[in-house]
Amino acid sequence: MQQGTNLPKVGSYNRAVVLEAIQASDGISRVQIAAVTGLTAQTVSVIVRRLLEEGLVVEDGSAPSRSSSGGKPRTILRVEARAGYAVGVHFDPQELSFVLADLAGRPVTRLHLPLRPRARPDAVIRGMARTARRILREAGVPDGKVLGVGLACPGPLDADGVMVSPPRLPGWDRVPIKGLLQEYTRFPVTVDNDATAAAIGERWAGIARSARGFAYLYLGTGIGGGLILDNQVYRGSSLNAAEFGHITVEPEGPECYCGNRGCVEAVCCPSAIEAALGSGAGHAAICAAAAGGEPEARRVIERVAQRLADAAVSVVNMLDIDLLVLGGPALREVGEIYREVIARAVAERPLARRLHGVRVETSPIAADAAAIGAASLVFHATYAPRLGTLVSG
Amino acid sequence: MQQGTNLPKVGSYNRAVVLEAIQASDGISRVQIAAVTGLTAQTVSVIVRRLLEEGLVVEDGSAPSRSSSGGKPRTILRVEARAGYAVGVHFDPQELSFVLADLAGRPVTRLHLPLRPRARPDAVIRGMARTARRILREAGVPDGKVLGVGLACPGPLDADGVMVSPPRLPGWDRVPIKGLLQEYTRFPVTVDNDATAAAIGERWAGIARSARGFAYLYLGTGIGGGLILDNQVYRGSSLNAAEFGHITVEPEGPECYCGNRGCVEAVCCPSAIEAALGSGAGHAAICAAAAGGEPEARRVIERVAQRLADAAVSVVNMLDIDLLVLGGPALREVGEIYREVIARAVAERPLARRLHGVRVETSPIAADAAAIGAASLVFHATYAPRLGTLVSG
Repeated sequence: MQQGTNLPKVGSYNRAVVLEAIQASDGISRVQIAAVTGLTAQTVSVIVRRLLEEGLVVEDGSAPSRSSSGGKPRTILRVEARAGYAVGVHFDPQELSFVLADLAGRPVTRLHLPLRPRARPDAVIRGMARTARRILREAGVPDGKVLGVGLACPGPLDADGVMVSPPRLPGWDRVPIKGLLQEYTRFPVTVDNDATAAAIGERWAGIARSARGFAYLYLGTGIGGGLILDNQVYRGSSLNAAEFGHITVEPEGPECYCGNRGCVEAVCCPSAIEAALGSGAGHAAICAAAAGGEPEARRVIERVAQRLADAAVSVVNMLDIDLLVLGGPALREVGEIYREVIARAVAERPLARRLHGVRVETSPIAADAAAIGAASLVFHATYAPRLGTLVSG
Repeated sequence: MQQGTNLPKVGSYNRAVVLEAIQASDGISRVQIAAVTGLTAQTVSVIVRRLLEEGLVVEDGSAPSRSSSGGKPRTILRVEARAGYAVGVHFDPQELSFVLADLAGRPVTRLHLPLRPRARPDAVIRGMARTARRILREAGVPDGKVLGVGLACPGPLDADGVMVSPPRLPGWDRVPIKGLLQEYTRFPVTVDNDATAAAIGERWAGIARSARGFAYLYLGTGIGGGLILDNQVYRGSSLNAAEFGHITVEPEGPECYCGNRGCVEAVCCPSAIEAALGSGAGHAAICAAAAGGEPEARRVIERVAQRLADAAVSVVNMLDIDLLVLGGPALREVGEIYREVIARAVAERPLARRLHGVRVETSPIAADAAAIGAASLVFHATYAPRLGTLVSG
């Protein structure tokens, strides 16, 4: 049942709306904030004063008034990047990536650590915590400025941050990863699946800044996705929405570990690409060869691109979005091949193609998208205007 | 950019929340409304007093207090069904269906009229208006009690209610159907695509009452869908979301008019079923034969059910919903076959199947779903609590 709302909820929601408007801009005046948020000048002014007092926002010079009549120059506001930090951890079955990000979402430090196959969950999580603490120490960030640790990890996850039979991580079923990381770091931990984290990262600090809605297709060891719909992260009833990797693209295709056949992931993930070429070459080598024009590798990659495009057309038909972002480490050198094939498909095939175009972009932060996204999870959880907060206790 | 909110918006939003809580119940007390909406007793009391004054809600006896300590019995509130009416019109390429519905969403009158193939748009729309007026006259509903006319029609539609190259209606490109029907009826007209209308009908008065989120799969001359996500109708950026009929289920399958290959619609719509059997039998006869156990017809229908199930699994993987409703006239006698096959697939195949089940239901109002939904469009537009209204001008 839809919930009602009240004044205190409205206050903190509007505060988040203003902070998001400042974060999404490259400097913005109070008048512009009022224009983009629909809030009154007075409301904006009160909220900005508070954000300045708290040190989350700074005044950064002034812009000349747009009107030629002169008038008082407008003060430009920016997020104070050094007001807070978050550590983002991306837990991929093959490696751990860490990013220390400032409040503007900019990465200050990055670190990649390979992961021993079949390492014990508790040892891995203790290692994450140790590394997170070390990065903060080396960067000289005091505990008081740490907003939290964000963790992007393979789904499915339940609402308490417990991993539920992650298909590529045997031995991790029912591991309460959020609770353990919290215990070992002594910071608040925000957890989400890797692709949703990456999507939030793109919206907070990447290519989809202030996009009303978009789908994020994440290509890593597996294939996942994230959805921002009507300005909100869409997670679904069990927090496992946007599993684009399990759209069926070849009904008679190979079996997928998920219990289905011919899933995008079973056809398009790096190990499937290696199997399709069958030469013993690794995914990185195949991508390099395809990018270099080697015909066999190129043929395999183009077929994968076609299947990704089929899935993308289904996503567009289902969700009627204007923007599709491709990200994740498996893009490697072939991101542009994927982007072109998908862009052509979503221009030619969706039912509503005559009503609106669909932009397809590869993420400039592809390889680190999930780790940066993980850090953004913390900022998002702390600051983003979520309609849900208007209508829940 | 996310918009801010303010007090007047909060007031009308909360009013809609209370009205929806009353509509979704079979009688509810003020205390219960406060419990389900999260609003304070005082806010509920003020809003209910206003709704009683306006005649939208009535007090209908009282329920014994739940506590054994006695206490004052609680007054039960219901929507006053006769407070307002709407005419729902479903424009299918083959027939026009009309429903006169009261404010509780109950159909008072129904009427079906066959449509001449290639009838001129203007003549068809004038006919709709004449019939709508006649139904109101015959039911004795005065103009003052008519909240409007709802129109469910084939997409794509633009934001002004103009039809944009509807694939099964040559000659209807760029017809401003909403504007014309408004002109000819002199009532406000709310238009939406047929499947979204049917989904709203299910949530207002049907099987999905007060469901937080669900997908509606509409099987008519074509195949479409509707989405309610996080308690809101999800329409997408060009109002053309939920085109489930154009999910690819057979990549090498038959060409679809949409420009794609092997779409659900190209494989599963009534004309495709007729072509698959190839005996010259019509869709109705094939459905009857399959329901009666005739092997060839049964085989064709079961294959269609499998392809619908493939699409349903993709929808569940993508949107992580708990409820899937099947509706529309093409369900005929085979609805239960479809339901069983789809229910099995969504129990066994989605990635998050261990985290939550997915209920699959056939709509009890399947044949009239779009027309009843069209009438509900009017109530929904007038009364439903839309988060969007909190954050837009």
